[in-house]
Amino acid sequence: MSGPQLPHRAQDQAVVGAAVVEPSVQRWTIFEWSLQASLDGSARDTTVRATFRHGADAISVDGFPDGDGAWRVRFMPHETGEWRFHISSSIAELDGSTGSFVCVEPGPSNHGPVQVDGGFHFAYVDGTRYLPFGTTCYAWNHQPARRRQETLSTLRTSPFNKLRMCVFPKRYIYNADEPELHAFARKADGSLDFDRFEPEFFRQLEARVGELKDLGIEADLILFHPYDTWGYQDMTAEQDERYLRYLIARLGAYRNVWWSIANEFDLMAKPPERWLRFLEILAEADPYRHLTSIHNAERMFDHDHPGITHVSIQSWDVKRTREWRERFGKPIINDEPEYEGDVPLPWGNISARELVHRYWVTLLDGGHAGHGETYLDDHDILWWSKGGRLKGESPPRIAFLRRLMEEASGPLEPLEPSWVWTRVSAGAVAPGTWFFYFGEHQPGRWTYGLPTEDGDYAVDLIDPWEMTVTPIPVSPPPPPTGLPGSHEEDPPAFSVDLPARPYLAIRVRKL
Amino acid sequence: MSGPQLPHRAQDQAVVGAAVVEPSVQRWTIFEWSLQASLDGSARDTTVRATFRHGADAISVDGFPDGDGAWRVRFMPHETGEWRFHISSSIAELDGSTGSFVCVEPGPSNHGPVQVDGGFHFAYVDGTRYLPFGTTCYAWNHQPARRRQETLSTLRTSPFNKLRMCVFPKRYIYNADEPELHAFARKADGSLDFDRFEPEFFRQLEARVGELKDLGIEADLILFHPYDTWGYQDMTAEQDERYLRYLIARLGAYRNVWWSIANEFDLMAKPPERWLRFLEILAEADPYRHLTSIHNAERMFDHDHPGITHVSIQSWDVKRTREWRERFGKPIINDEPEYEGDVPLPWGNISARELVHRYWVTLLDGGHAGHGETYLDDHDILWWSKGGRLKGESPPRIAFLRRLMEEASGPLEPLEPSWVWTRVSAGAVAPGTWFFYFGEHQPGRWTYGLPTEDGDYAVDLIDPWEMTVTPIPVSPPPPPTGLPGSHEEDPPAFSVDLPARPYLAIRVRKL
Repeated sequence: MSGPQLPHRAQDQAVVGAAVVEPSVQRWTIFEWSLQASLDGSARDTTVRATFRHGADAISVDGFPDGDGAWRVRFMPHETGEWRFHISSSIAELDGSTGSFVCVEPGPSNHGPVQVDGGFHFAYVDGTRYLPFGTTCYAWNHQPARRRQETLSTLRTSPFNKLRMCVFPKRYIYNADEPELHAFARKADGSLDFDRFEPEFFRQLEARVGELKDLGIEADLILFHPYDTWGYQDMTAEQDERYLRYLIARLGAYRNVWWSIANEFDLMAKPPERWLRFLEILAEADPYRHLTSIHNAERMFDHDHPGITHVSIQSWDVKRTREWRERFGKPIINDEPEYEGDVPLPWGNISARELVHRYWVTLLDGGHAGHGETYLDDHDILWWSKGGRLKGESPPRIAFLRRLMEEASGPLEPLEPSWVWTRVSAGAVAPGTWFFYFGEHQPGRWTYGLPTEDGDYAVDLIDPWEMTVTPIPVSPPPPPTGLPGSHEEDPPAFSVDLPARPYLAIRVRKL
Repeated sequence: MSGPQLPHRAQDQAVVGAAVVEPSVQRWTIFEWSLQASLDGSARDTTVRATFRHGADAISVDGFPDGDGAWRVRFMPHETGEWRFHISSSIAELDGSTGSFVCVEPGPSNHGPVQVDGGFHFAYVDGTRYLPFGTTCYAWNHQPARRRQETLSTLRTSPFNKLRMCVFPKRYIYNADEPELHAFARKADGSLDFDRFEPEFFRQLEARVGELKDLGIEADLILFHPYDTWGYQDMTAEQDERYLRYLIARLGAYRNVWWSIANEFDLMAKPPERWLRFLEILAEADPYRHLTSIHNAERMFDHDHPGITHVSIQSWDVKRTREWRERFGKPIINDEPEYEGDVPLPWGNISARELVHRYWVTLLDGGHAGHGETYLDDHDILWWSKGGRLKGESPPRIAFLRRLMEEASGPLEPLEPSWVWTRVSAGAVAPGTWFFYFGEHQPGRWTYGLPTEDGDYAVDLIDPWEMTVTPIPVSPPPPPTGLPGSHEEDPPAFSVDLPARPYLAIRVRKL
């Protein structure tokens, strides 16, 4: 899955104190500048702002206090060559500092951040195609080290290249453990002081994001969520804003960060304008414009907002994927088309076959699907929350689907919907490759939506569960009947005889 | 399925000419009065209207010409005792005729017409529960006698108690045969003269409706449809109206008639006000107020219209059943949740397992589902169009489901929707019986929506495909966790351990 591992903390290569030229910062890795100040970094009105210049480019980022008077500035350069920077700060010792570094070409597995590409799809900034195949381990980062290692080891051989995870600890069914660390310092009474960050918590979070980066996995960071008994969800507007700016300053330079502003935002008590304010802050403080979304429970966010880069949703109703595309005109990631598992909660107990089915429908209808796994466990170690090991049967089938999609050159660009596509999912992959997925349909013969141009075509029968690809012959196109209901408007170049079993697909390639 | 067979044409018991008392007309059978007139019955301005009186009741119906000067009046009495009638007519020989007959109690298998009962359900007028389990043979009545006999023979041992069928012949894919009879006489050039009825066509139609009545099957008669190359769908407003009045006069007295004003009305070129006019005519000319619907293709009719008794639709999206109930407040019959079969058309190629799944979802969510079968056939004999024999695997499973629903006393009265029900289908059957159908969900343990009252409960595991009902033990309710997301608001009296396989159901009964 991932290429050779890069050192995950590029700031190792930077210097502490006055800046010197550091030749080995790759594009889309982190340049870090830091200084020990004598002032208490947690004073609310302290500002540290750095502006990085390269030719006509000038990019400003905030610095952040990292405890015990340490101040850091992190920056992710996007162009090779010399970058110069200048610090402005309310701390006299820092104000006016300058320096420079040289940015060099990236290593082979570093393609930069992922961006929206082609309206409904994604690519790394260097143009490499990125097809999101995400999974969910909401609280893996709040688990003991041994379980985290197990999670990383599982991810290394999994098909997943995106992970949804919560910044804040989670308290929820099957997730009752108290985390080792909290994001804020404790008050004397033991409750959290939402005005004082706990830097070690964020260092650990960065380490986790870095571990994912080394595996080629995008970290879909959930900034707020309602699964909480500690008070995180009831922070004031000011506390929310300070936390968000701190997180951007610390993590914005990680190329694999995505901002998922909330999970199930509609289950939280925050006033609606708060979400809009978060989008404003991101637009202002994140110069890299990382991918940004807000995930729903029952009610969708207004994804038309220009700050929302893609539609991150949960819905079992995957045949609505084309409808969502048309409604929002942005990439659709259905992160939770329900999970493979057997817990009593209906969102967590669909069969592996059903999840694989929902993946195929979603992808061939032009969306992207996410994985989660919730099997009952004597020790409450459910992948969806704590990570660990995968027990289910869907991941190898998801890997098979990913391989098929990646083998087809170019982005998956679905056909426009027409009557037939509302019931059978079909996508065309440029150039000259088409997929049809029949799901619960079991035609003994297929003619609709096939290429109409004369030519030589190769057709493969795909069994998404058995993970087989079998060449099958093509037949002459059916003679026109002239009868109503026969839909002969676009006569195909050929037809295909099929085994009349459900849950099969075909791939058609022009030779 | 059906009880002892009654003579299907009660008019055999009536007299021709001046009326005499006929003692043996049962409630909800047909009294027929007829007279040979010397005038041409097809003149457009001829009127024959009969008023039947019984105590304070006075019911008027139109008579109709049956060819060669014969005029008939048909009437379905709903009360026992003496009925007197009086004829008003523009034909002098008929005008002023009077007579009477005695209506007696019905035989054991005659429960009268079906009506809406309890908002979302149906019952025969005598109070006997009617759960619609329909099938579709659009053109069975236009087939040769031998095939029709085969169809009736198939229906006799099938679970189906309603049949959708077209009055007019059908021309469509897999249905290219010219029918033996048309509803209108031919012009000299061979085209149909939509101003002259062909009485023999309608006599045959009545015979078919009677045959279904004898099998205890409701005839869901489709009055207009777009599958046509003869011009039926392009009749003028006046021709449409005359045809509709003629059909009501001829067939209104059949207790098993339902009016399906159109199939796929939205594929027809008729102006929207025409459909409203048909509803007005039915309200005016059908004193029995037979069940009335209009079936859609892609766009639903405005089922709020008071003349529409129930929502007859086609949709694969069966989990929307509760949404439709809430939207229209009328019984939902999803006559076409796609058909079991293997033709290329996606509406006709779902697997038997999927159709059985869609039945369970629809019924437990408080709707009613319809069957159809479209397997490729060398001679184009597809059940959905021509009848014949059933080849599929869904009918025995539909029979199993029907038996389960009928065994539970009282009507199926679904629970109100709540979060859990949008993903798992559940219905409560009065008194004290609940069904849960898990579909693609495979909980290893179930707790939600179970009865909360202490007591003894019996639980059966149901396999809808294997058609088995197996008693399973109940477990103590789970101890409350107090965790977010655990949905412990309504603690159940018990919980159930399940085999964690999809497509299972449970039945819970209070002992």
